[in-house]
Amino acid sequence: MKIGIFDSGVGGLTVYGTLKKKFPFCDFVYFADTAHLPYGNKSKKAVISYSRRIIGFLAGKGADLIVCACNTASSVAVPELKKESPVPLYGVIEAAAEVAKKSKRVAVIGTKLTIKSKAYEKAILGKKSGIKVFARATPLFVPLVEEGWVGTDVCRRVVEIYLGDIKKYRPDSLVLACTHYPVLRGLISDYLGSSVKLIDSSSIVNVLAKHIRQGSGSGRSEFFASDDPAHFAETAKNVMKIGVKKVKLCTKFV
Amino acid sequence: MKIGIFDSGVGGLTVYGTLKKKFPFCDFVYFADTAHLPYGNKSKKAVISYSRRIIGFLAGKGADLIVCACNTASSVAVPELKKESPVPLYGVIEAAAEVAKKSKRVAVIGTKLTIKSKAYEKAILGKKSGIKVFARATPLFVPLVEEGWVGTDVCRRVVEIYLGDIKKYRPDSLVLACTHYPVLRGLISDYLGSSVKLIDSSSIVNVLAKHIRQGSGSGRSEFFASDDPAHFAETAKNVMKIGVKKVKLCTKFV
Repeated sequence: MKIGIFDSGVGGLTVYGTLKKKFPFCDFVYFADTAHLPYGNKSKKAVISYSRRIIGFLAGKGADLIVCACNTASSVAVPELKKESPVPLYGVIEAAAEVAKKSKRVAVIGTKLTIKSKAYEKAILGKKSGIKVFARATPLFVPLVEEGWVGTDVCRRVVEIYLGDIKKYRPDSLVLACTHYPVLRGLISDYLGSSVKLIDSSSIVNVLAKHIRQGSGSGRSEFFASDDPAHFAETAKNVMKIGVKKVKLCTKFV
Repeated sequence: MKIGIFDSGVGGLTVYGTLKKKFPFCDFVYFADTAHLPYGNKSKKAVISYSRRIIGFLAGKGADLIVCACNTASSVAVPELKKESPVPLYGVIEAAAEVAKKSKRVAVIGTKLTIKSKAYEKAILGKKSGIKVFARATPLFVPLVEEGWVGTDVCRRVVEIYLGDIKKYRPDSLVLACTHYPVLRGLISDYLGSSVKLIDSSSIVNVLAKHIRQGSGSGRSEFFASDDPAHFAETAKNVMKIGVKKVKLCTKFV
């Protein structure tokens, strides 16, 4: 069985890492749309158009199912593209919402486009009404992670500023609605306290478990990037601490 | 006379503002490649390809000359595209280097791609040997400016961290090699001291003055963006404090 995964950049590798660990017998094909990253400041229309082309590409590479590991694209593109996708398409929102619905007070942080879409509120409240949801955009987290500044006083201060209102709101859980954010898990937990459950996009593993056929792959992973594969591999290693080999350039969408 | 200007986003509006003030009688056509912003983390090949298409577009709109207001594209694309451009093409580097060569010790800050290209070192030393040049990438400045955090303690601290080595180096001048950075002028000057001359991309005005024919336009400005024109107009107003009206969407390159 082959799992297709896509994201605008390295963030989705946190999802890839979790899936690879859980389903080591599967094959994986990962597409990073580095020519258009970040998706968080693009329009809905553009993100749908990019996602549509990538889904076609991954299906063409033999993916039996596709995970959109980008929260922005999961918010604005997956709902539009689910029906037309040639293979089953999963965003990361439903799975996180499934976990979040166990809380009474949920907070959500993500990119501007993800938060503006209200996709998480809709997904959580669609599962169970009466839950309180508080969401805010935290756009500086991605550049801080990509710059490798997670351990700095600056990053700590940005966490305080962005999460100050969330702390006052006293949530039971916080959804990290961007695949870069798990890198900030320790810092966020230090600030909010360990009683706040952190939910990330890796929750998708629970959904996929129902659809994955055991032992039906060779455990191979392939990586493609729409721009600068060497830089993608370097960031994967330095920022996400995940080694990827032989990233191939695929410029047909640029 | 019509001046074409392009950048990946709103940054080039600092150059547009200066040129518009100096040459109010000219017509302007501005292209923001918001579908691909930021250029600073894309490959040289991609930035050349984007710039080539935009130059063709602006020439098609009747530009008599084109200013590449993006430092990244000026570093990696303008040298490659100068010969093939149908109208005179100016990057922002030569003009800033012309001012910088009056100093003995020059510092340069910009995006990763701009600094990696060593375009400023080459331009400055090509004009006058023996000048000491110290360059470093400061990638968090753009997201801080775009997030509207210029007045915060976080931004002040990032300035201290990024410019700490530069302060020790005791430069006579600092080149702000990114069109977003003039917004940080006050903060940078506070930290380095007012004796350090700040040189920005608006120096291009000195070069153009030789080529602009007085009174040969109607003072009209047109704006195009390759994605989300409303967001471009909003950021222009909120971040760059420049009002732009009727930004048209141009998706032919996306």
